Amino acid sequence: MKVSIPKGFRDFSPEVMAKRNYIFDTIRKSFQLYGFEQIETPTMENRETLTGKYGEEGDRLIFKVLERGDKLKKNVAHLVSEINKGIREEDLKGELNIPVLMKILFKEKEGEALRYDLTVPFARYVVQHQNEIAFPFKRYQIQPVWRADRPQKGRYREFYQCDADIIGSDSLLNEVELVKLFDEVLSNLGLKSFSIKLNNRKILSGIAEVIGRPEMIIPITVAIDKLEKIGLEKVNEELSQRGLSADELEKIQPLFKIEGSNDEKLAQLSKFLKDSEIGLIGIEETKFILDTVDSLGLTIASLEVDVTLARGLDYYTGAIFEVVSNEAKMGSICGGGRYADLTGIFGLKNMSGVGISFGADRIYDVMEELNLFPESANATTQVLFINFGDKEASYCLKALQKLRVEGIRAELYPDPAKMKKQMKYANDKKIPFVVMVGEDEMSSGQLSLKNMESGEQSKIIIEELINSMS
Amino acid sequence: MKVSIPKGFRDFSPEVMAKRNYIFDTIRKSFQLYGFEQIETPTMENRETLTGKYGEEGDRLIFKVLERGDKLKKNVAHLVSEINKGIREEDLKGELNIPVLMKILFKEKEGEALRYDLTVPFARYVVQHQNEIAFPFKRYQIQPVWRADRPQKGRYREFYQCDADIIGSDSLLNEVELVKLFDEVLSNLGLKSFSIKLNNRKILSGIAEVIGRPEMIIPITVAIDKLEKIGLEKVNEELSQRGLSADELEKIQPLFKIEGSNDEKLAQLSKFLKDSEIGLIGIEETKFILDTVDSLGLTIASLEVDVTLARGLDYYTGAIFEVVSNEAKMGSICGGGRYADLTGIFGLKNMSGVGISFGADRIYDVMEELNLFPESANATTQVLFINFGDKEASYCLKALQKLRVEGIRAELYPDPAKMKKQMKYANDKKIPFVVMVGEDEMSSGQLSLKNMESGEQSKIIIEELINSMS
Repeated sequence: MKVSIPKGFRDFSPEVMAKRNYIFDTIRKSFQLYGFEQIETPTMENRETLTGKYGEEGDRLIFKVLERGDKLKKNVAHLVSEINKGIREEDLKGELNIPVLMKILFKEKEGEALRYDLTVPFARYVVQHQNEIAFPFKRYQIQPVWRADRPQKGRYREFYQCDADIIGSDSLLNEVELVKLFDEVLSNLGLKSFSIKLNNRKILSGIAEVIGRPEMIIPITVAIDKLEKIGLEKVNEELSQRGLSADELEKIQPLFKIEGSNDEKLAQLSKFLKDSEIGLIGIEETKFILDTVDSLGLTIASLEVDVTLARGLDYYTGAIFEVVSNEAKMGSICGGGRYADLTGIFGLKNMSGVGISFGADRIYDVMEELNLFPESANATTQVLFINFGDKEASYCLKALQKLRVEGIRAELYPDPAKMKKQMKYANDKKIPFVVMVGEDEMSSGQLSLKNMESGEQSKIIIEELINSMS
Repeated sequence: MKVSIPKGFRDFSPEVMAKRNYIFDTIRKSFQLYGFEQIETPTMENRETLTGKYGEEGDRLIFKVLERGDKLKKNVAHLVSEINKGIREEDLKGELNIPVLMKILFKEKEGEALRYDLTVPFARYVVQHQNEIAFPFKRYQIQPVWRADRPQKGRYREFYQCDADIIGSDSLLNEVELVKLFDEVLSNLGLKSFSIKLNNRKILSGIAEVIGRPEMIIPITVAIDKLEKIGLEKVNEELSQRGLSADELEKIQPLFKIEGSNDEKLAQLSKFLKDSEIGLIGIEETKFILDTVDSLGLTIASLEVDVTLARGLDYYTGAIFEVVSNEAKMGSICGGGRYADLTGIFGLKNMSGVGISFGADRIYDVMEELNLFPESANATTQVLFINFGDKEASYCLKALQKLRVEGIRAELYPDPAKMKKQMKYANDKKIPFVVMVGEDEMSSGQLSLKNMESGEQSKIIIEELINSMS
């Protein structure tokens, strides 16, 4: 039998786990400092909670759980009887009509599916528990999500999302806090240069309005979102293909020439959007966020207005965020935005929220590339005691106990194996100190300590060892 | 649409999460102190990795992932053609032969399934990564597992396991360390009275040997495992039903009368097992573990030999552990044991290991019942700033920043809502201190601080506030 895991999934070794935990712990600590509280939602949601929330493409990528027992039996029985009635015979000539058969076999409105992101389960949570929640609800959530995407480099079928959202408050101060949070977390992780890009869905609506095609907002924003990637010419081609007339194309061109400082950009944008009420509101909101953040200052991040920033998600209604590293080649490492009506899909209206998400896997890759993980991210054993036999081991176990009480990570090699093997173990596990206790050491109480990096050896009593380690 | 989650699954609120994290953090810290390193394995394993490892009943409880795209298409096409060929017609008369249809639809050897425990994925991990691992490998793993069990009180379809295992070492010192680890973790969690029950699979083998039915070891141990639950009479009934003769039943009776201290129990057992080589080895191993633990001492736990302890898992070959609280009504809260050949199922022979598992959900319930969660388990905001309007909010944001730099969890209510609403928010979220900053406070720098528990109000400058909080 082949020993492997499914494609697109990963095992995390101790070394990788230590680094991942360093990222998660840093994020968690800042989330808490900002008053966010953790929740967890189950791995499985009802299929109908997820279906229809991520577009057609998204729906296809949702992992569904195979039904069990009587339910599956009923569905298979139904399928068999349908086929025997000849109703599906046409499906046998040439291609099978899989969607029809699938609908018989696996009811879309029944059964379970694995969560695809943390946002929809969060919306469901808020609606379900609305009477227990203190609003505005500031929640964070760090859990894996699953997508049946084609696996490729850097794209996995299981990956963690780290989300913080505030729901039940219109205040733009929330946007300000989230910008600060991006800055704090990524600065704490050691990034030296990164940009928080800011746009507003109302500005995008204004643009569609100004060129006279408000109904085209989605295709227009999808196209201009690609400006950096494919260039102006191709964007114009796409806009034309999507149905913009030459006249309308002409009208949108000033947008692509907006440049300068944030203030300069907003001034040019104000001119462009002067006849769009919603567009001007978007500019006002953006100004407020910029000014307030400016009065507080940022540690490392630069906050930049980017009118071509759109992001895929249709539910954003106000500010839109994206964070990119300026040092590493990588797409966005964080994102987020304001949604006026996220819980509406579950029947709770008028709940405005704003949220951000840290892409832990991409942040990991950036930190690896830039060599940003500190030594202390490694939570390995600090001291290994060499095992020379029963009597020595018994002595060492008591010493171990003293170290552990003081919070020092320590272990005894469990077998009286050859010295070389035990030292190799210390090396492989990157344990920095090794203690040797033989007859002499037991009678004198002077332990032999070896620094595995320098190779230096010294004699030390247990109390000194504790002091030097803690 | 009904807003709910599937049966047997749970949402965790901030309050519950804080307590759960307290348990996980305590366990994690001790695991690390003892030299265990964390790994994570993917949620999904290949179906064939899991199938056949948990017995027939276990296999039925494995959650399988619905196949997608071309694979599912192929299987459905196969099913349709089989049915149309009439091969399955017999299945339509009366009950459908679901297992046959299922085998066509869902290949057992293909596709993915959700992990059922952490032990089998660990064994798979060890075999797959054997060349990168420093043996003996001390790993810990804290992740959810899924079982399609009938949901009932205290039994969930998704729950966390917290496992620590050492693989690649025969030494009984590992068993000693694990006993110490049980003691340390549960003492740190605040349990005041609990017992670690110890038995040895070799003793159980010896018992089956002595009564002349070595092949009956599994049914015999399953029966005597129930002694405490159903009483002696019923155990004897069951043993007789399972095929023990009156003579054999007679032979086993002394076992049920074993009592006294650990030493006394072992003395009686030695007599009982005097003709069984393997049984006597089991006694020797147990003695070593008891003596060594005794020389080190335990904080709170009592370590008790229990010859009726069997535990369900067939792969144990040496020591068997189970931990019960003496204060709360609850089954075992931890378990574990030695397995001589766990990785053999994946083709890697002669890898002896020993591991333990903490049942986080049961420990949670015990701690709730005994009211053991400390105040500090609550990671909520420490200070809420009341929002009186734009100018005041802007002042407060700067104060927030100073508090957070010092590690104090602080937030500003995002909207200038009515005082009553803001105070209710502080109350609901159990925030202990509230700061009010109006015109006076801004000009004097003397903030108004309210202790939410005592109701006491005082004036304080920001530096004093920081000192009093950190």
